[in-house]
Amino acid sequence: MEENVTIHRYFDSAEQAELFTLVTKISEKELAPVAAAFEARAEFPRQLVARLGELGVMGMAFPERWGGGGQSVTFYLQVVEELARGWLAVAESVHLQVLTCRGLAQYGKDSLRERYLPAMLEGRLLGGNCMSEAEAGSDLAAMTTSATATDDGYEISGLKTWVSHAGVADVYLVYCRTGRSGPGGISCFLVEAAQDGVKVFPPFAKMGVCALPTAQVAFGEVRVPAERMVGGRNRGMLVAASVFDHGRMGISACAVGLAQAALDYASAYAKERRQFGSPIASFQGMSFMLADMAAQIAAARALVLSTARLIDDGYPASAEAAKCKLFATDTAMRVTTDAVQILGGYGYVRDHPTERWMREAKLLQIIEGTNQIQRATIAQSL
Amino acid sequence: MEENVTIHRYFDSAEQAELFTLVTKISEKELAPVAAAFEARAEFPRQLVARLGELGVMGMAFPERWGGGGQSVTFYLQVVEELARGWLAVAESVHLQVLTCRGLAQYGKDSLRERYLPAMLEGRLLGGNCMSEAEAGSDLAAMTTSATATDDGYEISGLKTWVSHAGVADVYLVYCRTGRSGPGGISCFLVEAAQDGVKVFPPFAKMGVCALPTAQVAFGEVRVPAERMVGGRNRGMLVAASVFDHGRMGISACAVGLAQAALDYASAYAKERRQFGSPIASFQGMSFMLADMAAQIAAARALVLSTARLIDDGYPASAEAAKCKLFATDTAMRVTTDAVQILGGYGYVRDHPTERWMREAKLLQIIEGTNQIQRATIAQSL
Amino acid sequence: MEENVTIHRYFDSAEQAELFTLVTKISEKELAPVAAAFEARAEFPRQLVARLGELGVMGMAFPERWGGGGQSVTFYLQVVEELARGWLAVAESVHLQVLTCRGLAQYGKDSLRERYLPAMLEGRLLGGNCMSEAEAGSDLAAMTTSATATDDGYEISGLKTWVSHAGVADVYLVYCRTGRSGPGGISCFLVEAAQDGVKVFPPFAKMGVCALPTAQVAFGEVRVPAERMVGGRNRGMLVAASVFDHGRMGISACAVGLAQAALDYASAYAKERRQFGSPIASFQGMSFMLADMAAQIAAARALVLSTARLIDDGYPASAEAAKCKLFATDTAMRVTTDAVQILGGYGYVRDHPTERWMREAKLLQIIEGTNQIQRATIAQSL
Amino acid sequence: MEENVTIHRYFDSAEQAELFTLVTKISEKELAPVAAAFEARAEFPRQLVARLGELGVMGMAFPERWGGGGQSVTFYLQVVEELARGWLAVAESVHLQVLTCRGLAQYGKDSLRERYLPAMLEGRLLGGNCMSEAEAGSDLAAMTTSATATDDGYEISGLKTWVSHAGVADVYLVYCRTGRSGPGGISCFLVEAAQDGVKVFPPFAKMGVCALPTAQVAFGEVRVPAERMVGGRNRGMLVAASVFDHGRMGISACAVGLAQAALDYASAYAKERRQFGSPIASFQGMSFMLADMAAQIAAARALVLSTARLIDDGYPASAEAAKCKLFATDTAMRVTTDAVQILGGYGYVRDHPTERWMREAKLLQIIEGTNQIQRATIAQSL
Repeated sequence: MEENVTIHRYFDSAEQAELFTLVTKISEKELAPVAAAFEARAEFPRQLVARLGELGVMGMAFPERWGGGGQSVTFYLQVVEELARGWLAVAESVHLQVLTCRGLAQYGKDSLRERYLPAMLEGRLLGGNCMSEAEAGSDLAAMTTSATATDDGYEISGLKTWVSHAGVADVYLVYCRTGRSGPGGISCFLVEAAQDGVKVFPPFAKMGVCALPTAQVAFGEVRVPAERMVGGRNRGMLVAASVFDHGRMGISACAVGLAQAALDYASAYAKERRQFGSPIASFQGMSFMLADMAAQIAAARALVLSTARLIDDGYPASAEAAKCKLFATDTAMRVTTDAVQILGGYGYVRDHPTERWMREAKLLQIIEGTNQIQRATIAQSL
Repeated sequence: MEENVTIHRYFDSAEQAELFTLVTKISEKELAPVAAAFEARAEFPRQLVARLGELGVMGMAFPERWGGGGQSVTFYLQVVEELARGWLAVAESVHLQVLTCRGLAQYGKDSLRERYLPAMLEGRLLGGNCMSEAEAGSDLAAMTTSATATDDGYEISGLKTWVSHAGVADVYLVYCRTGRSGPGGISCFLVEAAQDGVKVFPPFAKMGVCALPTAQVAFGEVRVPAERMVGGRNRGMLVAASVFDHGRMGISACAVGLAQAALDYASAYAKERRQFGSPIASFQGMSFMLADMAAQIAAARALVLSTARLIDDGYPASAEAAKCKLFATDTAMRVTTDAVQILGGYGYVRDHPTERWMREAKLLQIIEGTNQIQRATIAQSL
Repeated sequence: MEENVTIHRYFDSAEQAELFTLVTKISEKELAPVAAAFEARAEFPRQLVARLGELGVMGMAFPERWGGGGQSVTFYLQVVEELARGWLAVAESVHLQVLTCRGLAQYGKDSLRERYLPAMLEGRLLGGNCMSEAEAGSDLAAMTTSATATDDGYEISGLKTWVSHAGVADVYLVYCRTGRSGPGGISCFLVEAAQDGVKVFPPFAKMGVCALPTAQVAFGEVRVPAERMVGGRNRGMLVAASVFDHGRMGISACAVGLAQAALDYASAYAKERRQFGSPIASFQGMSFMLADMAAQIAAARALVLSTARLIDDGYPASAEAAKCKLFATDTAMRVTTDAVQILGGYGYVRDHPTERWMREAKLLQIIEGTNQIQRATIAQSL
Repeated sequence: MEENVTIHRYFDSAEQAELFTLVTKISEKELAPVAAAFEARAEFPRQLVARLGELGVMGMAFPERWGGGGQSVTFYLQVVEELARGWLAVAESVHLQVLTCRGLAQYGKDSLRERYLPAMLEGRLLGGNCMSEAEAGSDLAAMTTSATATDDGYEISGLKTWVSHAGVADVYLVYCRTGRSGPGGISCFLVEAAQDGVKVFPPFAKMGVCALPTAQVAFGEVRVPAERMVGGRNRGMLVAASVFDHGRMGISACAVGLAQAALDYASAYAKERRQFGSPIASFQGMSFMLADMAAQIAAARALVLSTARLIDDGYPASAEAAKCKLFATDTAMRVTTDAVQILGGYGYVRDHPTERWMREAKLLQIIEGTNQIQRATIAQSL
């Protein structure tokens, strides 16, 4: 029921085109076929993620100095979209890794970058962000995990939640209170997962994207040397903020890819499935739904790409990134829900991927800032 | 996080009020607390369903002659709504049983009714309908399962799908071709599950409502005596059609109950959960979502009740029932999706029931005629 | 292009059924045919409104003691819906008159009621409410129009806006500040339009419903005797609040009638208009739109009726009335916009009423409390 | 209440940037201030349109050979958007002129192009398309206006409707039947408005965009020489089809500009208007609406620009153009309706432009192929 859909892609070089073709092949031949089974087992596809690291997918849009590929965000996001079309969890895993690397690349001391960044960009070391706490979700500035100065560094204690890559990450960027209450008293530290006092709880039983573990991580008097601080003392929110836009854009690209998968599948199904003597695609009640899905996806993709270009060109794009996140993920939710509807009963069972995609889409409206937070961000820009 | 919500109920007698209070108690104390666990195990709650049968819930709106309660459809649907508020699978199971009984009560020979109906209305015998086939979903008239006349009855062969209660039912109403192609060549038969040649396949892996098994059922040269025919020869579609409206209404009531559960839960959560120093219910971004949910649910409930009254008063109400099904289930889908959003990340994990409700809601837009079929029905009435 | 649509109506008596038939006839034969011309001229149909008063439409749901008909709100609202189906401005005019009378009937001194109420309920005297001010719209408690105590009464000065019936009303209920700031310092007075110092500005150029004048009314040292105070001193907000629910319900009924008119018209058009060799109603792209419109209207009507019954039965129903207003007017906006779409270019020109209905529908989302205010009211009830 | 909004624009040259700045100035200083008055009088702004012609706006994206500017469609559509932000009728007038010129430029004989095209691209001669007939709207192939061969040319007779620029155009492109029924028997002719037998009816009373006249045009035995045929005999549908995509794109750009105007205005109003002691923009009930509007507009704009680039790069883009038209105009309808809501009562009166914009937006969902036709086009491409 595979379907060739021609989407216009934007490449700067033959190298990009080639790499993209490879990614498409991986997405279709290696990710899509195994996604359902891994998701059913809630098993993290470590090897697949590592392989994408080797291919340079994670480092793609980082400076060559740190082992990156020096490619544009515009290209990188097209790659993320393509991965998400095959399997959302893998696309998100790549994206999470990239987010962790971004903070380190931009704010870490050289010694820290040298030690960790190349291995992370190549996917050999996995990273995760520890930001949210039970009482500090959308309101990060309320966090209470503390980092207390010691003779030669800091001692971290507290409980983080909604940590993606929890349990499979090798390093965590942990945001802790080092000063007064509010956003101006937070610092960021790199902690190794293997350190004493780091305890990962069992993963949450999420509605979807189960192959990507999300869990609580407890830090009990975990000691880190001073050089592990990323960004200045009490300037941790700057580090966090620096990746917000990238976080939004990655999720947006994921949303477009997921929605495209659902449209392709539903569209192919509607052409094959016959009722009342005709393919159901011949009924406007079906085909107009598909048309609306297609138009919304096209708009979401165009918005993501145009915002990516702004970012590549160095424009401030927080509000635009928030628009992307809001629009693309709302689109993914609608489109995947409608895709189930087009398959009818078949769409509701695990024999077809549509029910899984619908479950996965909901996550996108929530993570990297709920769509309510995005609206607040957009509103502030008006 | 339970919340008392005052919804106006319509009773004809103190007896109804009392029974309703009992149902509410069962819904809140016996269904809601165990729903998640049964659903996770995909276990059919046979005893709970049987208990509701004993209490008269299934027979409620049937004539007293057959052991029914002689109550109004209006009352019955309020009961279904209340059950669905606690656990959709149980409400649907009751509703499916009632649908099976309706065909039998209206079209069965007396001998057949005497033998099966009282036990079914009391929930001791469970029934299921075998209508759809792989190539005959929305287009029932295309079915090919055959019933061939024998000396003393019929021999049934064919493969039915989307059979609810498959594997737990004791009797099935099976729609078979006995004459020419199209809707005018179909007859309906009662088949016992224990008969030779009846084979139930493993249940489908549905996205939700897993406690209610749905599966394929194969009939291999299953012999039934002539008196097991329900309705006249080649008049099976009349039997089927006679329950369509009831089918729509039952699902509509389920949708209202499910949506109400989601609203209550999200509303209670929003009053408790604090972010930025205030309950999130104090932000219009949250409270206006809740208000929209509440208004839509109120409209859906009012529509279901007003249509139920039409049915009780003997008016033809197919188009109205289709409007109920379309509107109430679309409402349930939107409301449950928004309820997840209000809980944010917490809404997406199994610790809270919202993610399950969202998965369950999707089924309602599909069964008993997809919402596309409902639109076609409504359009025809205009 | 008229179309017979069967909507179930609820009457308590043969008298109601008869009156309703008469109203239907007036709506179809006297209102609908002249609406476009009056609206184009922005001319208030004083005689038609007076005639409805004579027939008892305005007094219908008032106690017989004051010349009312003692009928239920449920019946009255069905009448308003039916009038709005023919011509919104007339239905609203009736409704506005009723609102003014409600305050007077409930809170006026007997002398005042005896003098004004019978004539108003019979439509001989028209009334209007003067509540809003330029800086006090949704936030009535911020009003500044003052009523200063004099020897024998009060002197009113200030500028009111959004006064419906401005210029055609004979009496106004004017809300003025008589005490401290906020809602607890406001009193309500009956002022005759002919009094010295009352100045009506030219009507606003509204997008629609132009036959019903809305304007600013200035009060310059207008003297009223003390007995003209309606409700106690500084208790004016109670008078205002007492009609809020009725205001919401009247607008809701108007919205349902307007939407029904649009559906009937679009549906009839779609059956007559042929393109590509078939009536456009035969294309699901059209018929599914009509089906959605029909389902939403049915839900809105059911919600209005069920809430009307609550009010008739004496239940507090502010939140329910707010749900009606929100849901019914949003429905009217969508339905009328889609009706234009179904007629295509023809829907956009004045040869057909659809473009007018769309313009009219927008008003309903705004008056008697914007739909944002309704959401706030609903949210507070949760 | 003017508001500076920073939208990223894409220019190829300093010349483009300069011209765009000039267009912005004209839009804000010359179009916006007079739009309401012209629209109220239904007066076509001939001089303003001519001035834009002189400035090269109409010829912008035509080959220099015919007096065009050789600019990209991408640039041209940004200009159209900017004009529509000031006054939709003028943007549409420009766009209609461009559509007429496109057919002529691509398919006209050289003699015809030399005679008419330069004057048209400079706005000295206005053109209009005569396609639709009363019984041939969406289904153009059903047209019956005939062109009968004479000794030296053709004689045209028939009645066209929905002719924009009717009465103000100097030349019309008239589509006529010259052969068998269906799309393969239609030819296109250039007819001068001043010719004998051309009769323009009074303009339709549209709901909005009244400054741009739309009317029926009758052709009574109008004789044209053979060289006035544009495109080959019976190949008129090719000429028509060649401008469909441009038609969609122009309307899409208009929709984005109109929606942006509404967002800017509503946003500025929400920051100034105070209720309950705060600017209404500080309430999420308002600000989240504005955020949704902004996100949708951004998506629509991005989609228009990305499709414009495809067209500039020579890709076939019919389905993409249809997606633009569908999405951008649905966005404009929603956004302008919400803008009225944000202003409340003030939004509903002519003192503010929001009510006009809402009326104007509806036209965009209808012209250049209703959004239902666009959905059919998109569906066919899937």
